[in-house]
Amino acid sequence: MKIKSDIQIAQEAQMQPIASIAEKAGIPADSLEPYGRTKAKVDNNLLDSLQDRPNGKLILVTAISPTPAGEGKTTTSVGLADAFGKLEKKVMLCLREPSLGPVFGIKGGAAGGGYAQVVPMEDINLHFTGDMHAISAANNLLAAMIDNHIYHGNELGIDPRRITWKRCVDMNDRQLRFVVDGLGGRVNGTPREDGYDITVASEIMAVLCLAQDLEDLKARLARIVVGYTYDDQPVTAGDLKAHGAMTALLKDAIKPNLVQTLEHTPAFVHGGPFANIAHGCNSVMATRLALKLADYVVTEAGFGADLGAEKFFDIKCRMAGLKPDAVVIVATVRALKHHGGVEKARLGEENLEALEKGLPNLLHHIENITKVFGLPAVVAVNRFPTDTQAELDLVEHRCGELGVPVALSEVWEKGGAGGIQLAQKVMDVIERMENHFAPIYPDEMPLRDKIRTVAQKVYGASDVRFEPAADRELDKLEHLGFGDLPVCMAKTQYSFSDDKDKLGWPKDFTITVRGVKVSAGAGFVVALTGSIMTMPGLPKAPAAQAIDVDASGRITGLF
Amino acid sequence: MKIKSDIQIAQEAQMQPIASIAEKAGIPADSLEPYGRTKAKVDNNLLDSLQDRPNGKLILVTAISPTPAGEGKTTTSVGLADAFGKLEKKVMLCLREPSLGPVFGIKGGAAGGGYAQVVPMEDINLHFTGDMHAISAANNLLAAMIDNHIYHGNELGIDPRRITWKRCVDMNDRQLRFVVDGLGGRVNGTPREDGYDITVASEIMAVLCLAQDLEDLKARLARIVVGYTYDDQPVTAGDLKAHGAMTALLKDAIKPNLVQTLEHTPAFVHGGPFANIAHGCNSVMATRLALKLADYVVTEAGFGADLGAEKFFDIKCRMAGLKPDAVVIVATVRALKHHGGVEKARLGEENLEALEKGLPNLLHHIENITKVFGLPAVVAVNRFPTDTQAELDLVEHRCGELGVPVALSEVWEKGGAGGIQLAQKVMDVIERMENHFAPIYPDEMPLRDKIRTVAQKVYGASDVRFEPAADRELDKLEHLGFGDLPVCMAKTQYSFSDDKDKLGWPKDFTITVRGVKVSAGAGFVVALTGSIMTMPGLPKAPAAQAIDVDASGRITGLF
Repeated sequence: MKIKSDIQIAQEAQMQPIASIAEKAGIPADSLEPYGRTKAKVDNNLLDSLQDRPNGKLILVTAISPTPAGEGKTTTSVGLADAFGKLEKKVMLCLREPSLGPVFGIKGGAAGGGYAQVVPMEDINLHFTGDMHAISAANNLLAAMIDNHIYHGNELGIDPRRITWKRCVDMNDRQLRFVVDGLGGRVNGTPREDGYDITVASEIMAVLCLAQDLEDLKARLARIVVGYTYDDQPVTAGDLKAHGAMTALLKDAIKPNLVQTLEHTPAFVHGGPFANIAHGCNSVMATRLALKLADYVVTEAGFGADLGAEKFFDIKCRMAGLKPDAVVIVATVRALKHHGGVEKARLGEENLEALEKGLPNLLHHIENITKVFGLPAVVAVNRFPTDTQAELDLVEHRCGELGVPVALSEVWEKGGAGGIQLAQKVMDVIERMENHFAPIYPDEMPLRDKIRTVAQKVYGASDVRFEPAADRELDKLEHLGFGDLPVCMAKTQYSFSDDKDKLGWPKDFTITVRGVKVSAGAGFVVALTGSIMTMPGLPKAPAAQAIDVDASGRITGLF
Repeated sequence: MKIKSDIQIAQEAQMQPIASIAEKAGIPADSLEPYGRTKAKVDNNLLDSLQDRPNGKLILVTAISPTPAGEGKTTTSVGLADAFGKLEKKVMLCLREPSLGPVFGIKGGAAGGGYAQVVPMEDINLHFTGDMHAISAANNLLAAMIDNHIYHGNELGIDPRRITWKRCVDMNDRQLRFVVDGLGGRVNGTPREDGYDITVASEIMAVLCLAQDLEDLKARLARIVVGYTYDDQPVTAGDLKAHGAMTALLKDAIKPNLVQTLEHTPAFVHGGPFANIAHGCNSVMATRLALKLADYVVTEAGFGADLGAEKFFDIKCRMAGLKPDAVVIVATVRALKHHGGVEKARLGEENLEALEKGLPNLLHHIENITKVFGLPAVVAVNRFPTDTQAELDLVEHRCGELGVPVALSEVWEKGGAGGIQLAQKVMDVIERMENHFAPIYPDEMPLRDKIRTVAQKVYGASDVRFEPAADRELDKLEHLGFGDLPVCMAKTQYSFSDDKDKLGWPKDFTITVRGVKVSAGAGFVVALTGSIMTMPGLPKAPAAQAIDVDASGRITGLF
């Protein structure tokens, strides 16, 4: 049997009209703004009218440390939500929206896979409802207003050498990482070093995802620090009077986007910040609205649990007053064998020794969720045809020793039907296990201690070393009043440590903080460990070369 | 009485649901893709099913050479369409869509004014249905693929010093006019000189507006020349295999956008290329569809008739096989006095002498339309409160000497009711006058002769001088097989000549062609006379600083 591609499956789907999906989700027709026939935005004021309703159960899907073998976190999230649907529960799915960059590069789209996808797949992966473009426009308006201020006399005294605000584009374009702009003589600006990030790495994306409403969005935008004056004082978007126009550009982007899964489960796909320099999960607006509409809300966070889940708890839940009810940790036998040292080509062979060696990566993530954050957890093993029974048994046994149930997930092949066992185990742990959730540090803890707390309690580091530049910046930020903000760790996703090659459960390592930067609008202080890529490049044969459209508008080659 | 601002009038409008507007226009429900409640895209395949219908009458609205006094071309177009509606004619309006850049700069929005506007005004002026963003993305994907090709070995041998393709952003950002990118060492690209245009100046915009359908769009994108090899051979988007993915990005942007006027007249607002380096009118898709749906189609072209109308005839009509039925030339008494040498502060005073001195600007445009292009014309005087009867009589008298009727337009104040006289005179000239329309040069005329023909017949130049760089490039382009393309003149809009200070009807001047560039995808050769600004800057106090949004999402300060 020929296996169908994701886009084939997605294009063969019989989607329901978005008005029907909204009705099923309990969204009133007058709160729905259709974008075509199968996408819609939901009025951001709907939440106010539902505030007396109790919240549904919030289920976070996270994963082991990612490997080239792939774990299937989004696919599992979609399938789990569909499984709740099959069990006739009122459910909503909350996912991040994909960036155009990876679609044209290597990674492809990000709307799940197989029979566990959100649709319309092509639209979600291309322009969708325009949120990414609105964020780019707001980001680049602010950039233009900074340079324009300097050009017209620089009343605020902005030091062109210390502008921290970069321009952005939603594209993988390494050529733009480091540029000099303002060339061409006096009438064409002021020559200075500049650079571009991909749009999802823009602070505006983090701001949009953490905003409680339009007023909060505007207040956060006004607080964004864009650079420093010659006197070392921060300059904000508010100082430049840019925040009103930026909010106008984002007034629709703040509205959650409604789509459906292949099985017609309502899904919000809204916001998608990086999980290194930002917090890596979908918008607060979407999650809070979903919790008022459904009894079970399935959401995901970026990268592995050390980054995505930690930030979900310590940044998003802290700011939005959310309390998760259970966590699903996705793993695959193949990925665990990779953590045990097996090369990619041989991951299909049974290898219990390597599996045993790689399992501690999963076990460490489990302990973080259950012991450090005090939350009920279930492990979802995303099943591959090459997994042997002995391997699956070993995973179940080791997790069982920690008191954590394991469910096989076959949602890629079977849709919601392949996730019933997982859904039942999730409901069971919510019912049966105790929940002592709390963020792991208080607001008032000094920044260095917050960083140490995450590094030691979550990563298992023995110590944290601050390079001189980071030390100076931390002093400055505390002096400027940013000491009460949570920290956002920018670290490689491939290891608990800051060395991407230390797989499994590394021990006896030190985390080195090389730099620090405030995202004052988002409301966190980013600690940079190693160089974090905020503008990817394209591979030699970009995925874009294979993408095509026929005369009827049908897209092929997107994956 | 306090005069209401455009945005106040627009926000007080009771819009009809876009489905009702579509029904009124004869657009079947299954061809409509709603974007919110008051905007929609129309399926690009609808045109095929209507091809046996006769075309309605095509009325082009153009103007005298623009002045700081403002002429009100878009406002007149909207009001004229509404007037046809008041006369119970089946009418559609086709306008260009505005760019974000001017909205945040000086000029403000571009959706008409007073009681002659298209709505929703804020949406049309901000992201609308995302067409500009889609064009930016397609433009910048191609740019990224060029540099990525060079980075990965440069198999095609592209000379980095001779890349003609620029990046773009839909923002007024002078800082980006001249940049050096690819800095930061080998892994970050190849250092080279680069620059940004505003999105509406991208060739992709011209391509989108001239494409007949999705297949033609893809073929045109493949033909785009992005630069030259070390061997002086052109490199195209097709050589880089970028055209399929670019088409995928534009598959929705090609669909005409449907909105309504304040009086509920159906309006396509679709595409908006520059009128200097491109052809300056809305999409062929929208115009052709409107002609099948309505008995009267009102459309406009950019800048004055020497640029906008000439290109409408010689580029758009030539390529799309369109035949205009009448032309409206918009003028104001104030602007004509400006052409007669009156400074802006004194335009409100009666000055028959200055008016007489400025009138030849209008008369020259009239003669171009009627004698050079053989079309029936009506002059619309966009009335201001300061205009005196003697002034209005003088305009009517001078136009009457050329056999051209004059109508007062009061649509800004009165909506369609203020354009009835104009609509009646337009219907009258269509009925009564002969129409000998033809483009003014044949395809096979050599490029230099085409340029001379436009300069001498339309501008009234005595001669054309080609600078050596232009001469070399013209030889090269003819050698490469681009000699059969029409020419697109990039000239100042303020004068018939290439000197912006020569107002009125200048004589005895020479046009200097400084450079030449092929837009092989759009299908024309651009002749550059003087420096054409393709990336505007922001003023000292940008309009953006006054724009705000309240908690309910209502925008203020947009104009």
